[in-house]
Amino acid sequence: MRKHGRFTIPIQADFMEETKELIRRWGADAVRNSDGTELAESVQALHPAKIYAAYFVARGYNEFARTHPAERQRIFLMSARHTAVGAQLSFPIMEGYFESQLEPDYDWDPEHNWEVRDRTQGASVSNEYVHIDRNAGTVTIQKAVPGHVYTLSFPAFINWDPTQMYNYITNNWQGREKDIPFDVHGEMSWAFMKTALSHWLAQNPHVDVVRFTTFFYHFTLVYDKCRREKYVDWLGYGGAVSPAALVGFEKEYGYKLTPEDFVDEGYYNNSFRPPRKQYLDYMEYIQKYVSDRAAQLVEMVHQDGKEAMMFLGDNWIGAEPYGKYFADIGLDAVVGSVNSGVTLRMIADIPHVKYTEARFLPYFFPDSFYPGGQPEIEARENWLAARRAILRSPVSRIGYGGYLSLAAEFPAFVKCVEEIADEFREILDTIVGQSPYAPITVGVLNCWGELRSWQGYIAAHGMVYKQTYSYLGVLEALSGMAVQVRFLRFSDVAENGVPEDIDVIINAGDAGTAFSGGACWNNEALLSGLRMWVWQGGGFIGIGEPSAYPSQGRYFQLSDVLGVEQERGFTVNEDKYRTEVTEGHFITADVTETLNFGECKNNVYAITDDCEILEYSNGEVHLSAHGYGRGRGVYIAGLPHSSQNTRLLLRSIYYAAGKENQLHIFYAENPCCEVHGYRSCGKYALVNNSMESCFTRFWDGIGAEHMVQLAPGELRWLEAKS
Amino acid sequence: MRKHGRFTIPIQADFMEETKELIRRWGADAVRNSDGTELAESVQALHPAKIYAAYFVARGYNEFARTHPAERQRIFLMSARHTAVGAQLSFPIMEGYFESQLEPDYDWDPEHNWEVRDRTQGASVSNEYVHIDRNAGTVTIQKAVPGHVYTLSFPAFINWDPTQMYNYITNNWQGREKDIPFDVHGEMSWAFMKTALSHWLAQNPHVDVVRFTTFFYHFTLVYDKCRREKYVDWLGYGGAVSPAALVGFEKEYGYKLTPEDFVDEGYYNNSFRPPRKQYLDYMEYIQKYVSDRAAQLVEMVHQDGKEAMMFLGDNWIGAEPYGKYFADIGLDAVVGSVNSGVTLRMIADIPHVKYTEARFLPYFFPDSFYPGGQPEIEARENWLAARRAILRSPVSRIGYGGYLSLAAEFPAFVKCVEEIADEFREILDTIVGQSPYAPITVGVLNCWGELRSWQGYIAAHGMVYKQTYSYLGVLEALSGMAVQVRFLRFSDVAENGVPEDIDVIINAGDAGTAFSGGACWNNEALLSGLRMWVWQGGGFIGIGEPSAYPSQGRYFQLSDVLGVEQERGFTVNEDKYRTEVTEGHFITADVTETLNFGECKNNVYAITDDCEILEYSNGEVHLSAHGYGRGRGVYIAGLPHSSQNTRLLLRSIYYAAGKENQLHIFYAENPCCEVHGYRSCGKYALVNNSMESCFTRFWDGIGAEHMVQLAPGELRWLEAKS
Repeated sequence: MRKHGRFTIPIQADFMEETKELIRRWGADAVRNSDGTELAESVQALHPAKIYAAYFVARGYNEFARTHPAERQRIFLMSARHTAVGAQLSFPIMEGYFESQLEPDYDWDPEHNWEVRDRTQGASVSNEYVHIDRNAGTVTIQKAVPGHVYTLSFPAFINWDPTQMYNYITNNWQGREKDIPFDVHGEMSWAFMKTALSHWLAQNPHVDVVRFTTFFYHFTLVYDKCRREKYVDWLGYGGAVSPAALVGFEKEYGYKLTPEDFVDEGYYNNSFRPPRKQYLDYMEYIQKYVSDRAAQLVEMVHQDGKEAMMFLGDNWIGAEPYGKYFADIGLDAVVGSVNSGVTLRMIADIPHVKYTEARFLPYFFPDSFYPGGQPEIEARENWLAARRAILRSPVSRIGYGGYLSLAAEFPAFVKCVEEIADEFREILDTIVGQSPYAPITVGVLNCWGELRSWQGYIAAHGMVYKQTYSYLGVLEALSGMAVQVRFLRFSDVAENGVPEDIDVIINAGDAGTAFSGGACWNNEALLSGLRMWVWQGGGFIGIGEPSAYPSQGRYFQLSDVLGVEQERGFTVNEDKYRTEVTEGHFITADVTETLNFGECKNNVYAITDDCEILEYSNGEVHLSAHGYGRGRGVYIAGLPHSSQNTRLLLRSIYYAAGKENQLHIFYAENPCCEVHGYRSCGKYALVNNSMESCFTRFWDGIGAEHMVQLAPGELRWLEAKS
Repeated sequence: MRKHGRFTIPIQADFMEETKELIRRWGADAVRNSDGTELAESVQALHPAKIYAAYFVARGYNEFARTHPAERQRIFLMSARHTAVGAQLSFPIMEGYFESQLEPDYDWDPEHNWEVRDRTQGASVSNEYVHIDRNAGTVTIQKAVPGHVYTLSFPAFINWDPTQMYNYITNNWQGREKDIPFDVHGEMSWAFMKTALSHWLAQNPHVDVVRFTTFFYHFTLVYDKCRREKYVDWLGYGGAVSPAALVGFEKEYGYKLTPEDFVDEGYYNNSFRPPRKQYLDYMEYIQKYVSDRAAQLVEMVHQDGKEAMMFLGDNWIGAEPYGKYFADIGLDAVVGSVNSGVTLRMIADIPHVKYTEARFLPYFFPDSFYPGGQPEIEARENWLAARRAILRSPVSRIGYGGYLSLAAEFPAFVKCVEEIADEFREILDTIVGQSPYAPITVGVLNCWGELRSWQGYIAAHGMVYKQTYSYLGVLEALSGMAVQVRFLRFSDVAENGVPEDIDVIINAGDAGTAFSGGACWNNEALLSGLRMWVWQGGGFIGIGEPSAYPSQGRYFQLSDVLGVEQERGFTVNEDKYRTEVTEGHFITADVTETLNFGECKNNVYAITDDCEILEYSNGEVHLSAHGYGRGRGVYIAGLPHSSQNTRLLLRSIYYAAGKENQLHIFYAENPCCEVHGYRSCGKYALVNNSMESCFTRFWDGIGAEHMVQLAPGELRWLEAKS
């Protein structure tokens, strides 16, 4: 087993001797500078295989930015909502916003780009009744209707790069400059970006890998007057607007975008909104533009004999790794932060790059590395979550970030990382080039499809919300499950049917969101296509409020498939007698703890006698299964992440696919344990995903039964009999 | 104090001697036959002031009904939903229905009245593709679209009166006839009804009060193939259709109704559905027709020197006591079953009658009167609930039903009823003609308004559902609260503004229902009118999902008034920092137990810093208050019935009205206790609504503070100082 390689270590100045020892122990073959640290000049003395250097394209050159204020980046904002109580209404434009970050752009075509909307009528207010006072920073509306609510949409300059602002405020930096982001759509900015990169390349011959952090546009991140996050959308294109972009868009798409197309009633097209055509078009326009420009920078890097790596975060907007134009950029690698199986897969599954790299948690920062702290626990938990996913789809490399000197003070942590690095290398030595055993293909169906592979239910990256954890558990379960996973879009399925390789479709989300589907379900082609597909043998798993759209007597449009429907107050008058739970069912066979459906959905009830209710409490169904022709439907109220819920989903998938008799191949009975089989190399991995010792029955690749005791977190390789 | 009167006792044959004693003890001045018992011939020997006799207008004459099958009553039904999986779809018409109750009417204009609908397209299927097989009882659809869901709407005869069917099946009657209801719209039926009544009056000279049970059309009650309730709507007009009615309707309203107007996607226009114009028109048509015909019967009763009393239940459809045409009937009295303060008020507040009567629970039936049972507990609880309401708006009389001989076997119960009867008479002797102290007028705002006074959230009469108990608590609280209560309709408020006497408006219900309002909130006149009304000093209390309608960036359309909004998955990206609870608030001052919001609504959050959060748990707001101009908004997530919640609502009302400083008049601190003041007679009642002894501070009519100990359920009269 290789004790070296596939590992990137952060370095810092004045720590070179100790760094050497850690490089040896962790087997690091690449070094990088962390955010906030500079690459030490002596780094070459470490003789790493590769040296990474972070590179910022659109910020960090404040002299240029200050002298080209018209090419600052912009965003459309919506003011606070105000109710008129008389015929005149006046309010501050920037109320609630952080004025160090944002500044109204008064001069960009105000006739078109400054828009007062009557939110009670849902209509635009003529500008003849609107007066903007630049000095006072107020808007005044004449002939307002008392009792109507008004907002002002307006463009604003982004005067402070959101990530630098976040670090600045969080770390209470003093005396540093605030990075002003400039816009690639600006002619001078674009010329400057190329020149600056060229210059930087010339000055950094020792660098092997240019780690773009990232390209041109930051995800939407807006602060409030208290210097706190006010609105965040890790996937949002809000900060990618400019006069040139809107002109370019109109030229290409033949229509003009309005402020409301960006403001979107104040929801700003966040990814929970079923996307409208205007936003999809704009995303595509930006993707094409960003890919074209990024490709030119990458080409410069390649010309210089270096590799180009993209950080999946910060200014990544438009460089969609699962988008149509990503291949055009020509990147060598992508690196991203990993705190779960889902985020691991989000990196590992990216196509069109030579390698991928996961930056693991914890960061070597004082919030985890404090006197008496045990950062090795977080590191181990993070590893176990990521390992499940790696065993299905490995990243090429791993690494850590932060202050190495801080990590070095925690010997147990240093040892833990050594073990993780070795185990990672062993896994990759074994499985690279192998196809893990995955007898079922699952399609996750929503409004976004492949573009948002492993990116569902995200507001801020890596954050879990009350509204999302019950669905994130679905993706987390799938990230390390012995199935193939694809992401499907309603419109594709409606037009082209369910792809042939799909065995089971999952639709999981709150009613009305892009993940459940909302009005997308008002589509007879989608409905009849899915029904017939299930009828002929497919499996459909609905989680939360699947296929929810009120129409023609049903809320769950696929209630005939699922066998359940949600009471929305209109069927109180119907008697609901079906409450009996089917015991000893295949799906619940491994359940040992109380079932937990998270923020489960209320008032779901069985609508047919042949619906198998698997959990019934509080007067409602939370888990059920239903035969539908040769196929099956399964309903789950919610699926927070846990070993038991992961197992529940796995069994639901097998049941929905009608493949119950194939379950006991590469299978462990204990839900904390899993088996990953690699037939082509004749090996399989028995893993204990928990921090406890586990005893379990398991079945090998020919279905023979064995017993095993696994240590906490153990991964054990066995030879498969074929 | 009178020890006699205002009390109706059920009698039965072969129990006359014992009855006399009970008449004396309970002070009964009227006797009645209960369902299932005949008036004993010897009844006159009891020398009651009045003899009531139940009279059935539209059933109980099976020879007539059998010989006039075309005039049986009818209902439009929707078949089970079926998904086509090929080009032909065939299914049984009556699948799931109870065939002893219902029978397809194949001959009533099948071209128009039998309709196959494609529920996936939301369209009617041409009859050329539909074949009905009467012998097989099936429908076959040709050229069906695979994967589409189909239903058949069809008219059916009601061959069994639903109430008699219920009693028959519940009591397992053997050998009795099944009552066939006949239709007042039929010419021969109407003639027969008059003749039969005339004949009956002639044969029953000893009867003083004809208790109509009731008139012509039963509320919607449909049984399933297992002889169980399948669909029930105590307010439903489904069973009031006939060829003559639809012809009459078209003539009067100028348009033709379709089966779908009745079937309503299978929701059958239940009262949770925001009513559509067609249904409102039809209700009005039936009300006019029923009132006209009922008036003629009542006139016959009056001509015979008797009183006419209506039972509010069973066949009461069209005889809406709060409708526009009720006065025309000319009734003397209404009697109804009472199991709560709400049902008491539903009877007591009925206008245009000389007196009202409450039939209390428990019925003298074996389910309450079994060996070892304590029916007096149920009687006492029922009385305490009703008494609160009586102290605000008294019924004129009370009574019980069932088998008197059964009740007589329970001496504790007999004594309890004696005490209730005496207390009732004492209350009425004191307060009749007085206006109870009620310094605030509350308007309950929904789609139904006055027509459904005290009739919100009802599926089956007196039944509480998971979907309704959190709102029924609002009405139950109001039924005995020291406020005036009015019921308002969205359309009236939108057109005419808030009536001048209203201090506080309550909107309480699940999103989309007629009680919350659904699309009614998509009305700028309603919204701006309410906002300005609150701004100028009004109070708005939203409960559950008030003003919920997704539009222009808000779900709660009056979120600016309430200061809270509901997260529906589109504002996950917004940071929500407002979680701090305002302690020591006026609204929560009397809270002693854990707050209980019932089926509370998820994900409500404060949207403004001046929103006073009064309860925050599970990451969401369940109780809050918000100043809005000179008025106020209050949000409550749900309000199941309890003393504490009743107090919470009372204080919310005072707070919303800005009348906090007037609370301590006729007020008791302990939420189990209340004070009802009657200034004009100089008295007030201190009541303990609980079955426990209570100690409380209280304030008299001039706001002077006292202390008192009240026995369980005690009512104590005190002299008011003025």
